[in-house]
Amino acid sequence: MTKIISLLTDFGVEDHYVGVVKGRILKELEKPINVNFIDITHNIPPQDVKKAALSLYFSYRYFPEGTIFLIIVDPGVGTERKAIVVKTKNFTFVGPDNGVFSLIYKKNPDFTAFEIIKEKVLKPPYSSTFHGRDLFAPAVAYILNEMPWEEFLKPLPKESLKRLKFPYPEKTSKGYRLSVWYVDQFGNLITNLHKDMVVGVSFKVLVNKKEVPLVKSYGYAKKGELIALFGSEGLLEIAIREGPAFEILLNPEIEIILE
Amino acid sequence: MTKIISLLTDFGVEDHYVGVVKGRILKELEKPINVNFIDITHNIPPQDVKKAALSLYFSYRYFPEGTIFLIIVDPGVGTERKAIVVKTKNFTFVGPDNGVFSLIYKKNPDFTAFEIIKEKVLKPPYSSTFHGRDLFAPAVAYILNEMPWEEFLKPLPKESLKRLKFPYPEKTSKGYRLSVWYVDQFGNLITNLHKDMVVGVSFKVLVNKKEVPLVKSYGYAKKGELIALFGSEGLLEIAIREGPAFEILLNPEIEIILE
Amino acid sequence: MTKIISLLTDFGVEDHYVGVVKGRILKELEKPINVNFIDITHNIPPQDVKKAALSLYFSYRYFPEGTIFLIIVDPGVGTERKAIVVKTKNFTFVGPDNGVFSLIYKKNPDFTAFEIIKEKVLKPPYSSTFHGRDLFAPAVAYILNEMPWEEFLKPLPKESLKRLKFPYPEKTSKGYRLSVWYVDQFGNLITNLHKDMVVGVSFKVLVNKKEVPLVKSYGYAKKGELIALFGSEGLLEIAIREGPAFEILLNPEIEIILE
Repeated sequence: MTKIISLLTDFGVEDHYVGVVKGRILKELEKPINVNFIDITHNIPPQDVKKAALSLYFSYRYFPEGTIFLIIVDPGVGTERKAIVVKTKNFTFVGPDNGVFSLIYKKNPDFTAFEIIKEKVLKPPYSSTFHGRDLFAPAVAYILNEMPWEEFLKPLPKESLKRLKFPYPEKTSKGYRLSVWYVDQFGNLITNLHKDMVVGVSFKVLVNKKEVPLVKSYGYAKKGELIALFGSEGLLEIAIREGPAFEILLNPEIEIILE
Repeated sequence: MTKIISLLTDFGVEDHYVGVVKGRILKELEKPINVNFIDITHNIPPQDVKKAALSLYFSYRYFPEGTIFLIIVDPGVGTERKAIVVKTKNFTFVGPDNGVFSLIYKKNPDFTAFEIIKEKVLKPPYSSTFHGRDLFAPAVAYILNEMPWEEFLKPLPKESLKRLKFPYPEKTSKGYRLSVWYVDQFGNLITNLHKDMVVGVSFKVLVNKKEVPLVKSYGYAKKGELIALFGSEGLLEIAIREGPAFEILLNPEIEIILE
Repeated sequence: MTKIISLLTDFGVEDHYVGVVKGRILKELEKPINVNFIDITHNIPPQDVKKAALSLYFSYRYFPEGTIFLIIVDPGVGTERKAIVVKTKNFTFVGPDNGVFSLIYKKNPDFTAFEIIKEKVLKPPYSSTFHGRDLFAPAVAYILNEMPWEEFLKPLPKESLKRLKFPYPEKTSKGYRLSVWYVDQFGNLITNLHKDMVVGVSFKVLVNKKEVPLVKSYGYAKKGELIALFGSEGLLEIAIREGPAFEILLNPEIEIILE
């Protein structure tokens, strides 16, 4: 039986930090378990909890049932912020209570949450700066070891959990004003408009007051052309074929005009 | 039994795209199979099909029999380009029909090719921009599930396949004029001259008309010195010890003079 | 049974080199073995043996017993430098004899060392520039295959091994003058002062003659503030919260003043 551990951090891939977290998880296993580590990314900008929350949201549904997600984007490491485990019907999430699971809570309202009891997991000598290695990795291993959860976790009221806001498009007299939720590495701007919000209606997309063609995929755009398209998560994206849209569009005003 | 899936994309490692493809492959498995994902690279320059073809060519022979290669460098995603599966004696290749397998065809003339029947693989809602997740990942999973190939694949005539040209060195009156096939991240210029073409003959290497010493390995060069050597694939490389040759040699003229 | 292979190289992740090393290890296996490759990092600056030695030192203890570490940072590839296998009580290390294992020797004085007999491992045609693929990968596979070590290894006297110096803090009249051992990707400066050297004593930290507050973790620092803290390995770090300390501190003079 193989267990899938999916990792999302801001540790980068220059140093040894990610490898050490994986090593520590394996080191704490009490019996032979095949673990398949799947990296979502380790290149979240340092301490960008919001981007991590979106990256997780764009990913988690595509993993098999039973996947454990370990998310370490943790500006508050070593302070009093809680370390938590969140359980949904299909998945388990482990990470800091800083809002990184906000969209998981929203989409899986029947979730349950637990606090990791630090005194039960941290083994001296432990570090105040590397909870990935000393707190979260052992907690993941305890889950894999099927240690009874009450031995290292305690239930947490949902209302106490930190949540970040991901606002929907703002209604205007003529349509919607959009926000950019996520800029991917190709410079594509992923907005907060889901295609379900404009299903069956006729509309056009304005960027900085100018209409931009809505195409089916990048392959249909001319090189250098500014385009709009519904991306892989159903969200409207603004892109430039073979170029970074974000460089041209520093603070773009993106509008939907219903027709 | 562990299955090896080797991945080569231009998705980069900043976003979640690679992780999602792997997650989706695992999610579509119908029975427990150990999958060992081996990344060749995800940093092919965006849409550089030629570099991907070479990267695959430099790699595939070193993998164990039975490896499935998933190559997604796909400028035509969402357009009418075909998605294909290529079978050679030892390996299976999955990716777009855009020439990325050109060198596989050349070196394995007994290959067979199949088109992925999109209607059998794409499950709604699917994306026009992320076939890695919605088309190629499930196709790989179907192969792992040992689904009969005729249920999602149809034979494709070899002549219909797109092929890229990788020209051999050009014969000159005094020897050969070489092309640079691949610039690696250290700035080494990998040319199209294989050592088998000059076996048993005496020759010298000219770069921009000046002779460059041919050494056995980087360790024999002086720091900063321009050198030529036969690299790990038997191809002549132009390099600078501890420096990027490509910065100094923007459009180098590289010649072999037979003696 | 899963075997853990942990990799640390300067190959980068742009090209195919790392994938090829992993593929080759798997290709040389004689029976089905589950191999779990854990990357420490592949972004050691080219040929920076000292940084690789520290990266390994900061990592290896967190891996499970039986882990094989393959370290390829190898400026001397293709020259006469030896390829070695080092055995400690819990781990096996494979790599070049260039000092990259210096700190392993120091912390595990009961280690034993072996030279890889090149003629027994290199199979023609092999490359002089890519021993990762042609020498080290097969050697790792032979270990996994449980080939008797005397068939491809010969004992090496410990005194013959190359060692790098990692000096301790320099004693001054008022305390210690520190050196920077490692700059991580966030620009944190990791010094050579371990907290055990100042246990129970009162001291202050000076950077370029100015006192810097000693905090418990990054979370306690103000944004942009220069701080000192004991990092995850117990070593004193100089850091700027959410900023790269190394840019501000090109050649910092770091002192400990005992009080």
